[in-house]
Formats: sequence, structure tokens, C-alpha cells
Amino acid sequence: MLFHVRMDVNIPRDLPASEAAEIIAKEKAYSQALQESGKWRHIWRIAGQYANYSLFDVKDNAELHELLTGLPLFRFMKIEVTPLLRHPSSIRTDDT
Amino acid sequence: MLFHVRMDVNIPRDLPASEAAEIIAKEKAYSQALQESGKWRHIWRIAGQYANYSLFDVKDNAELHELLTGLPLFRFMKIEVTPLLRHPSSIRTDDT
Amino acid sequence: MLFHVRMDVNIPRDLPASEAAEIIAKEKAYSQALQESGKWRHIWRIAGQYANYSLFDVKDNAELHELLTGLPLFRFMKIEVTPLLRHPSSIRTDDT
Amino acid sequence: MLFHVRMDVNIPRDLPASEAAEIIAKEKAYSQALQESGKWRHIWRIAGQYANYSLFDVKDNAELHELLTGLPLFRFMKIEVTPLLRHPSSIRTDDT
Amino acid sequence: MLFHVRMDVNIPRDLPASEAAEIIAKEKAYSQALQESGKWRHIWRIAGQYANYSLFDVKDNAELHELLTGLPLFRFMKIEVTPLLRHPSSIRTDDT
Amino acid sequence: MLFHVRMDVNIPRDLPASEAAEIIAKEKAYSQALQESGKWRHIWRIAGQYANYSLFDVKDNAELHELLTGLPLFRFMKIEVTPLLRHPSSIRTDDT
Amino acid sequence: MLFHVRMDVNIPRDLPASEAAEIIAKEKAYSQALQESGKWRHIWRIAGQYANYSLFDVKDNAELHELLTGLPLFRFMKIEVTPLLRHPSSIRTDDT
Amino acid sequence: MLFHVRMDVNIPRDLPASEAAEIIAKEKAYSQALQESGKWRHIWRIAGQYANYSLFDVKDNAELHELLTGLPLFRFMKIEVTPLLRHPSSIRTDDT
Amino acid sequence: MLFHVRMDVNIPRDLPASEAAEIIAKEKAYSQALQESGKWRHIWRIAGQYANYSLFDVKDNAELHELLTGLPLFRFMKIEVTPLLRHPSSIRTDDT
Amino acid sequence: MLFHVRMDVNIPRDLPASEAAEIIAKEKAYSQALQESGKWRHIWRIAGQYANYSLFDVKDNAELHELLTGLPLFRFMKIEVTPLLRHPSSIRTDDT
Repeated sequence: MLFHVRMDVNIPRDLPASEAAEIIAKEKAYSQALQESGKWRHIWRIAGQYANYSLFDVKDNAELHELLTGLPLFRFMKIEVTPLLRHPSSIRTDDT
Repeated sequence: MLFHVRMDVNIPRDLPASEAAEIIAKEKAYSQALQESGKWRHIWRIAGQYANYSLFDVKDNAELHELLTGLPLFRFMKIEVTPLLRHPSSIRTDDT
Repeated sequence: MLFHVRMDVNIPRDLPASEAAEIIAKEKAYSQALQESGKWRHIWRIAGQYANYSLFDVKDNAELHELLTGLPLFRFMKIEVTPLLRHPSSIRTDDT
Repeated sequence: MLFHVRMDVNIPRDLPASEAAEIIAKEKAYSQALQESGKWRHIWRIAGQYANYSLFDVKDNAELHELLTGLPLFRFMKIEVTPLLRHPSSIRTDDT
Repeated sequence: MLFHVRMDVNIPRDLPASEAAEIIAKEKAYSQALQESGKWRHIWRIAGQYANYSLFDVKDNAELHELLTGLPLFRFMKIEVTPLLRHPSSIRTDDT
Repeated sequence: MLFHVRMDVNIPRDLPASEAAEIIAKEKAYSQALQESGKWRHIWRIAGQYANYSLFDVKDNAELHELLTGLPLFRFMKIEVTPLLRHPSSIRTDDT
Repeated sequence: MLFHVRMDVNIPRDLPASEAAEIIAKEKAYSQALQESGKWRHIWRIAGQYANYSLFDVKDNAELHELLTGLPLFRFMKIEVTPLLRHPSSIRTDDT
Repeated sequence: MLFHVRMDVNIPRDLPASEAAEIIAKEKAYSQALQESGKWRHIWRIAGQYANYSLFDVKDNAELHELLTGLPLFRFMKIEVTPLLRHPSSIRTDDT
Repeated sequence: MLFHVRMDVNIPRDLPASEAAEIIAKEKAYSQALQESGKWRHIWRIAGQYANYSLFDVKDNAELHELLTGLPLFRFMKIEVTPLLRHPSSIRTDDT
Repeated sequence: MLFHVRMDVNIPRDLPASEAAEIIAKEKAYSQALQESGKWRHIWRIAGQYANYSLFDVKDNAELHELLTGLPLFRFMKIEVTPLLRHPSSIRTDDT
């Protein structure tokens, strides 16, 4: 089941640089593991923003919530979720 | 080059049903031809809305504009465009 | 899987009264059949508004979309969908 | 009498972790006691958000206010209240 | 139980003047009867607007909804409802 | 002359509790003195909010401003003012 | 007593040109008579808009409302009113 | 050339009181000197707000910017600028 | 003097095609004449929108207003004006 | 390829003045180098704001993102990007 997610990141200025770097590294590993698993289908950077549009393919709302709240940067993010489905004009067989 | 596009469709009530059906059929053919060409990479329906999130892969802004204003439903759409780029955490080799 | 839905209804003034009455009667029957089936768990009127908050329990996003776009009043509605999940403090066993 | 309530929680970063944990534990106990009493009919987590949609069944506006301002997390919440009533299409006998 | 209500009126231009006048006369009678009954405690005009702020004192949400949807001008109004209660600093004995 | 005022209070977390309590006590006394004088006609709590709707009856805009900026909590408030007048449907003789 | 007023004019396309011209002429005469009387102190056009910022000097809210609702273009206007007072830094003796 | 300016002031709580008082005194002197020169034609307090509506008469956009960024309180202000011109219905000979 | 202008065009569906074509042709000639004169320095299409960002270089606010309200499409446009000036980091000698 | 960019700058009060001055000096050099290269075609100050409208001419979205996130003031900026293209009425040969 597909979900469109927008994530806006805002790391507070007073977070020590080393701590920020560590969280960002964990975030990257976390994201790439989920991409490898197929659950995080796409991630694109939005030009000029510390933000991304992503596409998740999960079992249900609960799994989506678990993945998003597990993001190492979650507490510094504003997140918007939109449920998607196959578009009747899509030519893709995997609904995406 | 990738662009994120949201399209909201609002067909006026006084458009004759046959005319509406014809435009919608043209829209589908137009969309599928662009999907086949690779320029319209993805199209997803937004749950509960007559709207979609789409991903375009075009040469430049001008080509994107030409494709969007060529949509048979263009005059009944509200369109929002967001320029995208490869996310540094993406594992995809085709930037998507 | 649970979804929170807000529906705002706006029936155009120039819709003939008999046609409006017929659509509203169909809407009621449609809603009650879905409530009986358990897919439309709750519907509450919002005080002072021609609007409701509803709770759907469906298999996936696609089923939700099918149910919503099948509403006899769909073309006169503004709809907002929010995916929900079991709250960790909930005492209910059916996640609702 | 039914009320729809949205609660968005935002715990400040500088709140000591132990203090936060204590407040969250109290919040859970407080919520579950009210659920047991029937006054807090439903609570659902919103996917991807530290937020919930809830349904309260209270005697009057004053009781609702007393319950909400008594929330251990109240000072870290943004709260929106919407008064509800039985929908004419509802099939439930307890107005919900 | 007290509710704060804002009503914005927008009578369509194509409503025949005689029909508009009749509805407005009915609205005034309806409002004054409810004021006499004590259920519509206050009504104030907002300067420069075809709008009012009102205060209702009703048994519950359902009665408020019944009174508001019964307004002769209801279909030409945008209505916002806010539930109120006695303020701890109020010196009034009737909670208003 | 009547004015509708909405006040939203937001006391900063780092204000010492004793200082906050003192300001709140002064606020209550200030409000009640103005209510006694007839200048602050009504004050109602908004359910679920640290906010109120109030009605002032003052000589002119300048007096309203003086009263509002004199509020002990003024520096922690967001205030919105709307000028009111007698509604043509009102049955009250004192314009309220 | 001073009020700041913003007026946005939107004359419907289907209003006959002669009728529009007549209303606009009446509006000008109405405005200039009130300017002569001193009640409409200032009127400025907003660049690029069919809109103005105005300053009224009236006895009270009721008089302001009477003047604004008497505008020949009133039914085609969106109006916003802000109550003003003498600024403590003003060097003018007439409070403006 | 005339400009309409809205200024909202928000002095941070942690600014020492003596420093705030000094800046406010400078602001008043700065404003009054510009009023004397005719460049700052009007300043009015907005009722209930730490804000003002002002009218500037300057040579060009650059001069307006210079005057506004020179305000002692500039770094604590939110400023909105609207370019104005003589209204065709104005009876004033000095375009104001 | 420089102004940034955003124009959003919305031609009503019931405008006869020949009339629309005539207005659009006049708009183009009008725009190009002003571009030749140097008063309309730039015009760019916004991707996916029937809208443009433009830059005007005019004597004053009044001239800008005259040029904008003279647009053949003016009555079908929503226009936003922002006054600009030379940026201190600009390397251009003509302030642009 | 052209992009319209709005940048709003907000330097935190607690940034040491010398550090701020150093960043601002770097920002100016960075901007002027990009202007010299032709990639940052225009930069204009918005009157009364610590903000600018800019025009970039870059190879693609990725280059735009690289230039913007490389801004010395980037972490203190709010940035909005709009993709542009040649307007059909433009008389310029370089698409601008």
C-alpha cells in the first residue's frame, strides 16, 4: 500500500555538531536499509529545501507510522502523509 | 530532470457529459503515451480526491510546461510544480 | 485499517429539488449499507455545518477511495482523508 | 454529548527525559481512566504525527474543558474542539 | 450551555428581491422568537460586514444544530461554532 | 460602544511559577474590577483553550486600547479586536 | 474616532455596463460627499488592485457601519475594518 | 510617492529593560523627526496591538527601504509595504 | 524604479473564443510595446501555470498602476505588486 | 534554465556580531562570484524586508540546489523556488 510523505527537517542550532552528524549518518543508514527492503520506494530532495518527497510501500497505516517515528531525525521533522492508490491511467503493473 | 507535480481536477457541472467523457479519454491516452515515453514517470491517485501526484522526467522547465499545458484537462486543473533532484541517501542509480 | 474522513457537502442551488432529494436518499441508503457492513464505522454530524466526521475501516487505500468516490454526493463534496492507527493508550481491543 | 478533539503534542527539547517520561506515563493512566469511565470514547493515533483524534462523551462544555485542561500533557498540546451530534444517517443507537 | 457562533451571510445576486426580502423577514422573526425564549442570548452586528457574532444558550449540541439549520438564511450562511463555558474570572452568576 | 475581543494566553515556560501566579492573580482582579465597572461586559472561556471571548463596552477605540494594554497578561497575549454594533434583529434595549 | 478600512471591489462580469457605470458614478459622488464632510478622511488606491485603503473619522461603530453599508458598491465589496487610535509618537494635533 | 506600511513590534523578553527603553526612546525621536520632515505622513496605533499603520511619502522605493531599515526597532519588527497612489475619487490636492 | 509583479490569468469559460483570442492578441502587443519602451523589463512564464513573474521599471506607483490597469487581460487577472530596489550585493550598474 | 527564488533572511539574535558580519561578507562575495559567472542573473532587495527576489540561470535542478545550499546564510534563510521559462510575449533573445 502506497503513501506519499513529505518530510521537512529543521535541526536546532544548539545541537552539538557531532551529535547532529551522528544522527544524520544514522538517518542515512536507516533510510537506505528501508529502501533496500522495498518499503521506502523513493526519496527525492526538494530543490532549495532541507526536505524530501518520499514514497512508502507498506502493509498498513501502523507499519507506516512505525517506520516514520523510527526515523533518527523524527523529532526534528515536520511530516505530512497522503494515502495513495493506483491511478486508472497508470501503465505500471506494480501500481507505482 | 525530475519534477513533482500535483494536479487537482475540477470539471464544471455544466460541461456536457459526452464532452467530459471525450476529454477524459483523451487525457488518459495523452498520459499513457507520455508514460510510455518515460517523460511521465509516475502517476498516483490521491485517496478520496479527484487529484494525483505525478513525477515527470524532462529536459527542462520549458518541456515540462509544454507537457502540462498540453493536458486535455489542463483548463480544469489546478497544478503545482516542485523541482526535485537526487537525494543523497537514494540507492537508485537512475536518480529516482 | 482505519481512516478519519471529513466530508463537507455543498449542493448547488440550481440542482432541481427533486434531484437533490433523490441523491440525498441514495446517500443515506449507501451510507447505512456500509455502516451495516462494518466498513463505515462511525458518522457524526458537525454542529452548525452540512458536514460530518466519519471513521472507515477498510482493507486498504484503494478500497477507501472506491467507497468515497462511490458516494452519491461525491461530486458535491470536499473530502479530507487522514490515516489512523491504534493509539498506544487505547483500551479497546478492536483498535478503535 | 459528543465532541471531536484533535491534540497535537510538542514536548520541548529541554525538558529533562525523566520528567518527560513521568508526564507521559501519567498521561497514559489519565487517558485510560477516562476511557474506562466512558467519557473518552475513542483515541486514535494520526499516522506519522505525534497527534491524535479523540472522541469525548461528556455532560457539557465545562466538563470537556475540565478533562482537557487536566491532561498531564496539556501545557505541551495544541487542542482543537468540534461539537458533534448524531448524524441522521447513523445506524447506531448510542449516537455514535 | 453556551456557544459562540459567527454567521456570515451571502445572498446570491440572482435571488429575486421579493424572495430575498421574504427570507430576511422570516429570519428576523425566527431570531427574535429565539431571543425571547432565551436560547439566542445575544446577537451583534460586525461593523462593515453582513455578519454577526451570536451567543446561544442551549441544552446540548443537537439543539444548537437544530436551531442553526432551521435559520431561514441557513443555506446562504457560513457558520462557525465555538463551545464556551464560564470563565473563572467572570463575576456573573448566570455564567455569561 | 461595543467591541468583541479574543485573547489567547501563552505564558512562557521559563517564567518562574511564583511570578506567573502573581500575574494571574492581578489579571483576575483587573478583569473583575472592569467587569464591575461595566466596561468589560462579558468574558467566556473557550473550551479546551487557554483563551477567552470577551465583550467590552467603552467610550472609544483609545479607551479600549488602554484597557487591553493594561492587562497584566498583555505581553503574553495574542489579541484580536472586532468592532460591533446593535444588530437590527436584537431585542435588547441596551444594544447587547 | 478613527478606523482603517480596506475595500476590495469585484464587479460581476454580467452586470450590464450601463448599470455598472451608474453605480460607479454614484460611488464617487457618495465618497466625495463624505470626504467633504470630514467623515472619510483619506482614500488611496492600492497599486495594481481595484482596491483602496481608507481612513474614516466617525462618531462610533454604528455610524461607520451605516456609512459602509450605504456605499453604492457595497454588495460588490469585501471590507475589512481595523479600529485605530492616536499613536504616542504622532506629532499631529488632530490625532491623525 | 505614497506607501502604506504596517509594522508589528515584538520585543524579546530577554532584552534588558533599560536597553528596550533606550531603543523605544530612539524610535520615537526617529519617527518624530521623519514626521517633521514630511516623509512619514501618518502613524496610527492599531487598537489592542503593539502595531501601527503608517503612511510614508518618499522619493522612491530605495528611500523607503532606507527609512524603514533605519528604524531603531527594525530588527524586532515585521513590516508589510503596499504601494499607493492617488485615488480617482479623492478630493485632496496633495494626493493624500 | 523597479517593481516585481505576479500576474495570474483566469479567462472565464463562457467568454467567446474569438473574443478571448482578440484580447490575448492585444495583450501580447501591449506587453511587447512596453517591453520595447523599457518599462516592462522582464516577463517570465511560471512552469505549469497560466501566470507570469514580471519586472517593471517605472517613474512611480501611479505609472505602474496605469500600466497594469491598462492590460487588456486586467479584468481576468489577479495581480500582486512588490516594490524592489537595488540589492547591496548586485553587480549590475543599472540596478537590476 | 531559469528559476525564480525568494530568500528571506533571519539571523538569530544570539549569533555573535563578529560571526554574523563574517557570514554576511562571505555571502556577498559568494553572490557576486555567481553573478559574475552568469548563474545568478539578478538579485533585487524587497523594500522594507531583509529579503530578496533572485533569478538563477543554471544547468538543472541539482545545480540550483547546490548553489542555494552553498549560500553562507543558507541555514538562516527561508527559500522558495519557482521554475520559469521563456514567456511567449517576451522580446528578449536570451529568454529573459
